[in-house]
Amino acid sequence: MELKRKDILNLSCMDREEIDLILQTAESFKEVSKREIKKVPALRGKTVVNLFFEPSTRTRSSFELAGKRLSADVINVSASGSSTIKGETLLDTARNIEAMSADFIIVRHASSGVPHFLARSLQSAVINAGDGANEHPSQGLLDLLTIKENKGTLEGLKVVIVGDILHGRVAHSDIHGLKKYGADIHLVAPPTLLPAAIEQWGVTVHYHLDEALKDADVIMLLRLQLERQGTGYFPTLREYSQLYGLNRRRLALAHPEALVMHPGPINRGVEVTSEVADGLSSVILQQVANGVAVRMALLFLLSGGKHV
Amino acid sequence: MELKRKDILNLSCMDREEIDLILQTAESFKEVSKREIKKVPALRGKTVVNLFFEPSTRTRSSFELAGKRLSADVINVSASGSSTIKGETLLDTARNIEAMSADFIIVRHASSGVPHFLARSLQSAVINAGDGANEHPSQGLLDLLTIKENKGTLEGLKVVIVGDILHGRVAHSDIHGLKKYGADIHLVAPPTLLPAAIEQWGVTVHYHLDEALKDADVIMLLRLQLERQGTGYFPTLREYSQLYGLNRRRLALAHPEALVMHPGPINRGVEVTSEVADGLSSVILQQVANGVAVRMALLFLLSGGKHV
Amino acid sequence: MELKRKDILNLSCMDREEIDLILQTAESFKEVSKREIKKVPALRGKTVVNLFFEPSTRTRSSFELAGKRLSADVINVSASGSSTIKGETLLDTARNIEAMSADFIIVRHASSGVPHFLARSLQSAVINAGDGANEHPSQGLLDLLTIKENKGTLEGLKVVIVGDILHGRVAHSDIHGLKKYGADIHLVAPPTLLPAAIEQWGVTVHYHLDEALKDADVIMLLRLQLERQGTGYFPTLREYSQLYGLNRRRLALAHPEALVMHPGPINRGVEVTSEVADGLSSVILQQVANGVAVRMALLFLLSGGKHV
Repeated sequence: MELKRKDILNLSCMDREEIDLILQTAESFKEVSKREIKKVPALRGKTVVNLFFEPSTRTRSSFELAGKRLSADVINVSASGSSTIKGETLLDTARNIEAMSADFIIVRHASSGVPHFLARSLQSAVINAGDGANEHPSQGLLDLLTIKENKGTLEGLKVVIVGDILHGRVAHSDIHGLKKYGADIHLVAPPTLLPAAIEQWGVTVHYHLDEALKDADVIMLLRLQLERQGTGYFPTLREYSQLYGLNRRRLALAHPEALVMHPGPINRGVEVTSEVADGLSSVILQQVANGVAVRMALLFLLSGGKHV
Repeated sequence: MELKRKDILNLSCMDREEIDLILQTAESFKEVSKREIKKVPALRGKTVVNLFFEPSTRTRSSFELAGKRLSADVINVSASGSSTIKGETLLDTARNIEAMSADFIIVRHASSGVPHFLARSLQSAVINAGDGANEHPSQGLLDLLTIKENKGTLEGLKVVIVGDILHGRVAHSDIHGLKKYGADIHLVAPPTLLPAAIEQWGVTVHYHLDEALKDADVIMLLRLQLERQGTGYFPTLREYSQLYGLNRRRLALAHPEALVMHPGPINRGVEVTSEVADGLSSVILQQVANGVAVRMALLFLLSGGKHV
Repeated sequence: MELKRKDILNLSCMDREEIDLILQTAESFKEVSKREIKKVPALRGKTVVNLFFEPSTRTRSSFELAGKRLSADVINVSASGSSTIKGETLLDTARNIEAMSADFIIVRHASSGVPHFLARSLQSAVINAGDGANEHPSQGLLDLLTIKENKGTLEGLKVVIVGDILHGRVAHSDIHGLKKYGADIHLVAPPTLLPAAIEQWGVTVHYHLDEALKDADVIMLLRLQLERQGTGYFPTLREYSQLYGLNRRRLALAHPEALVMHPGPINRGVEVTSEVADGLSSVILQQVANGVAVRMALLFLLSGGKHV
């Protein structure tokens, strides 16, 4: 099977067959990163450009390793050293990269919709690596892969998502992805960190974490982006962690085999206690490993690769 | 044929046969960047170091991709993270890089003459990627290649160069390169942005763009380096764009098949209207694509490669 | 022979047989960097991550080239763009990198003991690229290699180490390494830049450089880290250079074939005059070249490679 798509922008507009294909391809690529020689020639002579307008360690590194393990040439372009500080428009920056025969442009930007805008204007394949408060589809896909690996299925699971849904592009991708598999999605957040009209998304909203956790199969904790948010959304970090932080007592309310997930970087003691983050229920590092596999799958499939 | 030269520093001291050789080699490398597998083994096991003391996206990326498509190992060293902030001299920094067996050192520096100084002291091949207000030879070469591809020849063309000639290292390389082919060069700029005694370069100087554009074959717009210049050179940006900006009306004064060129990054609405920058006469993105090919040619030829 | 060790953290706890093995392996890798094609396939498909929490040009570049010349995939993660500014713990940052299947994590950090801490927690091989005022073992090893190459042996040499012993992680690695070969080590420094109880290290301490230099076989100058130190350690730079700077007159006090070494970056005119730094006794650039070879040896041996 083949992915008939030029770009990866949103999980919201991807159908279930496409997601299945990506996850199956990623599963077979997981094995590559476990080999003695973690390298396949699939994308030899292809060019991958990481175009990051927001700082990032893990996502940039994950795409860089994904590209390199597929034997692609990868270059990094970050906003700080970039021409945008010289007054160039975003589109001109991207068109220049495309003119250097970039096959893939991986874009992260603080504004929602930037990757979509670029994708419409460019022939290069564009992968959204996080756009404002909109989506972060490769993170959503690696979350789906991690759940599927541990639970055997994505269907009918009770998934509790906790934290900053308002600014949470990870949450948005997760919700869109999970809903395609009929997951029972529960959101828990301070009212100030919930988007308006959130119930229309077909999710259940709670204001109390304990109540939401009952029989949960998956608990997805969202990162509190302390570096971006003002302090206006909730009184103190301490109050946030008391009301919305996951600890051992609360974890016991969930299904005994519940998974604890977090997209990272973790604020230990805020979203989750160290005991839980490092405990047996946590699959946080497995998410990171799956990230490389998912990104290899995306690059491979977008370049016309077929899953067999 | 072979390039008998250790370094690429200036177009001013390169002869026409050398430039012809570089352009012919670049033409054959253009094809590589259009292949499915954009990679040849020519420089396998060679080391290219980008040593940039000024920020740059496009030139650094272009050299990086040129090196990688030739299978070289490429590393980036930028001033911000570099030892020069630790008090090391420029020459010591470069000698250290050479001592790590760098075959090529690509240097950009805010001071004129830095690449020449390093080239004299080092055995590594040095390529000037822009030195102060002096030259930017790989940009000059890619401009020549772009004109030649579109016009079939470089000889006898009327080329109008508009803007900041004073600080314009791109302009200087273009003028030196074009003069070797007998181009008829016209410069248009505010008097404050023209070097003293400019007529001695064998060019015609105009203060009015309309007058200069008549029958022009090529219009090269120079970037107004807003981030570097104080505001003392001309009253306002608006006045600059009214007097020296290229728009549709003005373009109509030139030859119907005139080329519009700009080294980028463009300040849209200042040096050129979007209509013209994105119009049929514009070869701006072709310049970018040719940049990779020219840099591949330079690396290839300096390493002893022969054009056949 | 094989190096039975997961990590390279300190020379203090490495035995002489291990150091011999590393130096012999490095000698054979020196030849690779002199070849036309500076590349061997030994680490193809391995992943090397440079995790630098302090800025560095030469050490980062040296490890990057070492990795690439062994055909490994190398990625750079620097503190400025990293998740640590987002509140993530050091260990979480490193675990994330490990979860992406990093084989080697090269760590530089301003705090002593960070690489040791990470090494205990990670399965990836950790190489200390400088931790606070503790050690910089790959620098110590390249210094040993440089002395051995020039003197034929490390045993019984009189080695004079001059400068900031207190903050000098390079000095510490050098001392630990040299002592294993029975070198006669003399330290010269302002009393404020000597650690307490330094005589217990089995070294001779001098406060006057002239006196220490008599018959010296090796003079190791330490970098004065002007960017880190306050001015409290000595009155003025001028006084420092008068008392502790190496010049031609002083060099004449040493053995006629004494080596002058400096880990770089050099503050010319402070630790050493230009005449001496660039003179026949100086092996400073040879140290840099040996750095790549030593780092190739470390990566090769840690990955299970055998020296034959």
